[in-house]
Amino acid sequence: MHDPRVPEALEGWSVLHQMFRIRWADWRARPDEERRLLAAEAAGALAAMRREGEGASVPVTLLGHKGDLMLIHLRRGFDELQAAQLAVAGLGLAAFLEPTTSFVSMVELAMYEMTLQIHRRLGERGLEASTDEFEAAFDAEMDEQKKRVAARLFVDPPARRHVCFYPMNKRRGEQKNWYAESIEERARMMLDHGRIGRHYAAQVTQIISGAIGFDDWEWGVDLFADDPLVFKKLIYEMRFDEASAWYAEFGPFYVGLQFSACELPKYLAGEVPKLLS
Amino acid sequence: MHDPRVPEALEGWSVLHQMFRIRWADWRARPDEERRLLAAEAAGALAAMRREGEGASVPVTLLGHKGDLMLIHLRRGFDELQAAQLAVAGLGLAAFLEPTTSFVSMVELAMYEMTLQIHRRLGERGLEASTDEFEAAFDAEMDEQKKRVAARLFVDPPARRHVCFYPMNKRRGEQKNWYAESIEERARMMLDHGRIGRHYAAQVTQIISGAIGFDDWEWGVDLFADDPLVFKKLIYEMRFDEASAWYAEFGPFYVGLQFSACELPKYLAGEVPKLLS
Amino acid sequence: MHDPRVPEALEGWSVLHQMFRIRWADWRARPDEERRLLAAEAAGALAAMRREGEGASVPVTLLGHKGDLMLIHLRRGFDELQAAQLAVAGLGLAAFLEPTTSFVSMVELAMYEMTLQIHRRLGERGLEASTDEFEAAFDAEMDEQKKRVAARLFVDPPARRHVCFYPMNKRRGEQKNWYAESIEERARMMLDHGRIGRHYAAQVTQIISGAIGFDDWEWGVDLFADDPLVFKKLIYEMRFDEASAWYAEFGPFYVGLQFSACELPKYLAGEVPKLLS
Amino acid sequence: MHDPRVPEALEGWSVLHQMFRIRWADWRARPDEERRLLAAEAAGALAAMRREGEGASVPVTLLGHKGDLMLIHLRRGFDELQAAQLAVAGLGLAAFLEPTTSFVSMVELAMYEMTLQIHRRLGERGLEASTDEFEAAFDAEMDEQKKRVAARLFVDPPARRHVCFYPMNKRRGEQKNWYAESIEERARMMLDHGRIGRHYAAQVTQIISGAIGFDDWEWGVDLFADDPLVFKKLIYEMRFDEASAWYAEFGPFYVGLQFSACELPKYLAGEVPKLLS
Amino acid sequence: MHDPRVPEALEGWSVLHQMFRIRWADWRARPDEERRLLAAEAAGALAAMRREGEGASVPVTLLGHKGDLMLIHLRRGFDELQAAQLAVAGLGLAAFLEPTTSFVSMVELAMYEMTLQIHRRLGERGLEASTDEFEAAFDAEMDEQKKRVAARLFVDPPARRHVCFYPMNKRRGEQKNWYAESIEERARMMLDHGRIGRHYAAQVTQIISGAIGFDDWEWGVDLFADDPLVFKKLIYEMRFDEASAWYAEFGPFYVGLQFSACELPKYLAGEVPKLLS
Repeated sequence: MHDPRVPEALEGWSVLHQMFRIRWADWRARPDEERRLLAAEAAGALAAMRREGEGASVPVTLLGHKGDLMLIHLRRGFDELQAAQLAVAGLGLAAFLEPTTSFVSMVELAMYEMTLQIHRRLGERGLEASTDEFEAAFDAEMDEQKKRVAARLFVDPPARRHVCFYPMNKRRGEQKNWYAESIEERARMMLDHGRIGRHYAAQVTQIISGAIGFDDWEWGVDLFADDPLVFKKLIYEMRFDEASAWYAEFGPFYVGLQFSACELPKYLAGEVPKLLS
Repeated sequence: MHDPRVPEALEGWSVLHQMFRIRWADWRARPDEERRLLAAEAAGALAAMRREGEGASVPVTLLGHKGDLMLIHLRRGFDELQAAQLAVAGLGLAAFLEPTTSFVSMVELAMYEMTLQIHRRLGERGLEASTDEFEAAFDAEMDEQKKRVAARLFVDPPARRHVCFYPMNKRRGEQKNWYAESIEERARMMLDHGRIGRHYAAQVTQIISGAIGFDDWEWGVDLFADDPLVFKKLIYEMRFDEASAWYAEFGPFYVGLQFSACELPKYLAGEVPKLLS
Repeated sequence: MHDPRVPEALEGWSVLHQMFRIRWADWRARPDEERRLLAAEAAGALAAMRREGEGASVPVTLLGHKGDLMLIHLRRGFDELQAAQLAVAGLGLAAFLEPTTSFVSMVELAMYEMTLQIHRRLGERGLEASTDEFEAAFDAEMDEQKKRVAARLFVDPPARRHVCFYPMNKRRGEQKNWYAESIEERARMMLDHGRIGRHYAAQVTQIISGAIGFDDWEWGVDLFADDPLVFKKLIYEMRFDEASAWYAEFGPFYVGLQFSACELPKYLAGEVPKLLS
Repeated sequence: MHDPRVPEALEGWSVLHQMFRIRWADWRARPDEERRLLAAEAAGALAAMRREGEGASVPVTLLGHKGDLMLIHLRRGFDELQAAQLAVAGLGLAAFLEPTTSFVSMVELAMYEMTLQIHRRLGERGLEASTDEFEAAFDAEMDEQKKRVAARLFVDPPARRHVCFYPMNKRRGEQKNWYAESIEERARMMLDHGRIGRHYAAQVTQIISGAIGFDDWEWGVDLFADDPLVFKKLIYEMRFDEASAWYAEFGPFYVGLQFSACELPKYLAGEVPKLLS
Repeated sequence: MHDPRVPEALEGWSVLHQMFRIRWADWRARPDEERRLLAAEAAGALAAMRREGEGASVPVTLLGHKGDLMLIHLRRGFDELQAAQLAVAGLGLAAFLEPTTSFVSMVELAMYEMTLQIHRRLGERGLEASTDEFEAAFDAEMDEQKKRVAARLFVDPPARRHVCFYPMNKRRGEQKNWYAESIEERARMMLDHGRIGRHYAAQVTQIISGAIGFDDWEWGVDLFADDPLVFKKLIYEMRFDEASAWYAEFGPFYVGLQFSACELPKYLAGEVPKLLS
C-alpha cells in the first residue's frame, strides 16, 4: 500500500554495526606466537569479507571507552548478517572482544520529492489511490527508481580515514511531532536539510540506513571524511535547520579511524593501523 | 466489573520471552564431545517443548549485541512458564547462556468495537451497568466471543523465518494522554491503526500480548515474516497513524531468524541454523 | 505538626523486598551433598522467620530475568530488617544469590477522608491549627484510628499463589502536579481510585507501603491473587481513573509464584515449588 | 562578585559519601584469623578518622541492594578527602568492598534572607554594586556571618541511629524553572520550606551540602534521627510546599543505621552493629 | 559555507579524556618489585607525553566512585589521540585500570561577535553570501583570527591543583530551543554568560572543547583552579544567567587533583600525589 502520508524509501544493503572493547591486558598476557596466529586468522577473515557485490566488513578503531574496534558489515540480507556475526564470534580473537553495543539497519534512500511527484502524476492519470491499478503503477515507478539509484543502495564504503557513526530519531513530542506534520512540510524541511549535506558533498560521504523495526533508533548515519573536523562543522550547521533543531533526537556518537584489514595485526600489537589505498 | 471506559480484552497463552547472550569463547573452549552432548540435550529439550495444545518454545537467533538467542515460551499459565524457565536454567548449556532481558505477558485481543456494542446492546435491553444482571449478561457475551476467537488466543507461532519483537506503551503525557481520551476516540484510532495491519496481513503474522501487571511495558508485539523489509515498511507506515504518532512509546527492538530446535547443534557449532518446514 | 494539606498516614510493618538472581550454573556445579545441606539450611532459616507477631519473610519465585527469587521481609523496625538482610547474606546459599534490586518501605494506610474529617471536627470544637491543644487532640484521634486498623497495618501476607510487586510515584510534572492539587481534589480522586480496588477485593489482596525517605519511589504495591489475570484486569482498569491516568508513574513490575519455605530445596533442585496450605 | 540574583552561601566541611556493597560470600570464605585481623585493621582506621576539628568518618550500614556500607567523610579540603579515599582503598578489607556510588560536596548554608538584607543595607549606605568598595563591604559582612555560623559549617555528625541520604536538584524545566524566578520569590519559597524543617528540629538533624561543580546533583541532604518514621513524615510534608512540589528533583535515597567504628568487626561477623554512646 | 545562523568556531587541540577506576585490591596483591617496575614505566610514559608543541597528557586523581584516575590527552589530531590511547592500553599498569568513561572533543573558541561582524563587514563591501568571493573573503578573515588566538587554541594546561570536568548541551526542548533562537539573541546571551567567566578569570582557567560529531554531549568544559570552592561559586552564579537557566543541560561532573607524572608511583603506593611546580 502506498499511503500518501508516508515518504517512499528504497532499501539496499542490510547492515550490522558491531562495537567491541578489546581486553588488552588479557590479550597481551598471551604468548607472542598465539597472538600472531590469532591476529593473522582475524585479519584474513576480515579481508575475505570484502567480496565484489556481496558486501564488505569495514574495520574502524574507535576513540574513547565506548569501544576499541567497530566492524561495519554490509550484506545482501539478514541471513548473511547472521553469518558474519557468527564468523566473528568464531574467531580465536573473539575471546578478547567484549561486545559493547551494535546497530541493525538497512541502507535507505528516502524519496520525499519522488513520493509527492508520483502521487501527483498518477492522480493526473486519473488513477485512484488504493486501487490495484494505482498500486501496480506505483510499484512500477518505484522499481524504475530503484534501478536508477542501485549504486547508492549497494554502495561500497569509501576509503576515507575518519568514520563517524550515530543513530537518530525524529521527535514525537507532545507538541513538536514529526509524524504529525504534513508530508509537504516534512518534504520542505528535508530538502532544506539535504542542502547543507550537499555543500559538504566533496568532503564527506554519507550512508543513511533505516532501523525502524530492527533496532532502538529509527536511523543510523555513517559519515566518512579525510578530516574529522568536517563531522563537527557539518553536524553543527545542520543543528540549526528546522528538521534538526525541532525534530532530531541523537543517540551516542562513535568516532574513529578506518583501517585496512591487513593492518589488524599491527593494531593488535599496539600500533595505530593504517588505511592502505 | 465492566467499566464502560475500559475496552474488554480476551486472553490466551501466557508468554515468556527470554533473551540470552551466548558465551561463545567459553563454549568453544569446551571439548568437542562435551559440546556435542550439551547441544543435543538442549535441542532435545526445546523440541519436546512443542506439544499439541500445551504451547511451544520458539528459538530465534538475534542480530546484534542485545542477545544471541531468544526463546519465546507460550504456555497455559504461569506455573507452566516457571517450569519452562527452570527447564532452561537446568540445561548443561545454561552455563554458557547469559540472560540479558526478558518479557512476561499474556496473548491478548483487545475488543474496542465489541465493548461499545455490548454496552449498547445491554443498554437497549434495559440492563443497568454494575447490576448483577448486567454483569452476568456481559460475561456471557464475552464467553461467547472467547470461543469464537480461541484459535487466535491460543495461536501456534507461524513457520516464518524472520521475527521482530518489541514492547510498547500508550503515552500518558501531561498533554497527550491515551488514558484520558474517551473510549469512542480510542476505538476510532485503533480501527485506523488496525487497517494498516490488515493491509499487510498476508505478509506478516502479528501476535499481541498484554503485560500490564506483569512487566515494565504495557504490551509486547511479535511479528513473523518471510521478508524482514516488511517489518520496516509496516512499522514506519503505522508511525503516521494518530494512535502511534501521538500515543505510542516504543521499547527496544529485537530482530532475528527463527530456526528449528533440531538445528540448535549446528548453530552452536557456528552455522546459521535453518527453519525446516 | 498536622498540616491540613497533608493526608495523614498510619504505618505498620517495616518492609524489605529483596530480589536475587540465582547463579544456577555455579549452584548445579556443587556436589549433591553440599547442595542438600545448603538448601536445608536456607529453608530452615526462612521458615523460622515466620514468627507470630514478629513478621514473616515470604519467598516468591519470579518470572523473567529481573530475578529468580524475591524475599519480602516484614518486621517491627529497621534494626530487624537489617538483621534479616544479614541473616540472608550469612546463608551458605548466599554465594549463589546475586542481588539485582530491592525496596525499603513501611506498610501504610493513607487517611484522606479521615484527615479532612478530623480537621473539620477540631475546627468545629474551636481548636486552632498549630496550637498545642489542637496537635494533642489530633494525635489522640490518630491513636484511636491506629488501634482500629492495627490488623491491616501488621497484616499477615495471604496464602495466595501469585504475587505482583511494583513501585510507583505521583507525578510532579510542570503542568500536572499531584502535590499542587488541593487535598479535597486529591481525596476525591483517591476515593474513585479506591472504588476499583474494592470491586476486586475478593480476588486480590493489596498491601501498600510508603517509601518516601527510604527508597527511590514513593510507594510500593504488593498484590496477592489466586489468578494472575486479576493483576492485569485490575491495573488496566485503574489506569483509566483520574488519579492514575494523569498522576501515576510506575516503576518496574515483578511477578511470580509464592511458595512455602519448606519447598525451597525442591525449587533449588529445579522443580516448580508449591504453596502448601 | 556578588550578583544580586544569587543567594550567598557559606561553606564548611568538604564531604565524600562512599557506598560499598560487601562481597559477603568471598569474605566468609576467608579463614577466621584473616577476617579477625582485617576487621580489626578497618575498625581501627575508621575510629582514628574521628579527630577533633579535623572531621570524622561516619559508618552506616544500609538497607537494600544499593550498598551494605556507607562511609560519610567530613574533611577540611579535597586533599584530605582524597587521603581518606586512599586510606579506605588501602585497607585489607577493601578487597571485599565493591564501590557502588559516591557523592562529593561541601557543607553549605544558603543565605537567602541575609543576601537580600546585605544588598539592601549596602544600597542604603550609597554603595554601588560591582564597585570595589561594595565588594569589600560585602565580603566583610559575609566573614562576620561565617564566624557566627562556624559551628553549623563544621558540624559534628550527631549520634543518632538512623541516617537518610539523598541528592537533589532544583528543576530547570521549560516552564517551571527555579533559576528563572526572582530572588525574592525564591527567598519566600525557601522560608516556607525551612518552616517545615524547624517543626521537626528536635526529632531530626539535617546537614545540607552543595555539589554544584563537584557531582551530578546540586545538593546532598543528610538526615539523622532516632526514629526513621520521621524521615518519611518530614519529606512527605515538604513535598507539598511550593519549593518542593514544583521545583525539587530527587535522586536515589539511601537509608540505614549509624554504628560505632568499634562495632565494625561484629557487623562483619554478621551481627547488627550498635551505635554506642 | 558560512551560514549566517551559525556562529563560527576555531579549533585547536584534539582532546581525549579517559577515566579509569584502579583495581586497588588486585594491584596491592602484586609483589612490591613488580609494582615498582610498572609504576615507574607508567610514570615515565606519562612524563614523556608532555612535549613542546605536541600536546600533553595531564593526570588527575578523582574523588568518588566514577573513577580514580583521569588522563586528559591534548594532541594535534585523531591519529595522535589513538596513539595515546594505545600507549596507555599497552602499559603494564593497564591490567589494573578499568575504563569507566571518556570524552572525545576539540578545543574550540566560539566566535559569536566576530561572526556577526564579518557578515556585516562583507555585506558592507557588497559581497553576497554563498558566492565564491564571499566565501574566500570570509575564510581569509577567519584565518587571520586563528593566528590571533592560536595560543588559546593550542593552550598548555595550567599548573593548578584542582580540576573540574563536565560535558554539556544546549537544550533543544519543545518550547525552549537554543537552535531555534536567532544568532543575535544567542550572541547576546553568550556575551552575558561570558561576563561571569571574566569576573573569575584570575581564579580559574577554562578550556572549552566542542564534541558535536565526536561524542554524546555537544561541549566539554575543563576548569583549573587553586581553590575548588571557585568551581562551585562560578558554576552556581552562571546557572542564573539566561543562557544557562533556560538552555544548558549538564552531564556528569568529575572533580579531582592534578598531579605531576613523576608522582604517579607515590599515588599507586597509596599517598596523595603532589603537583610539583
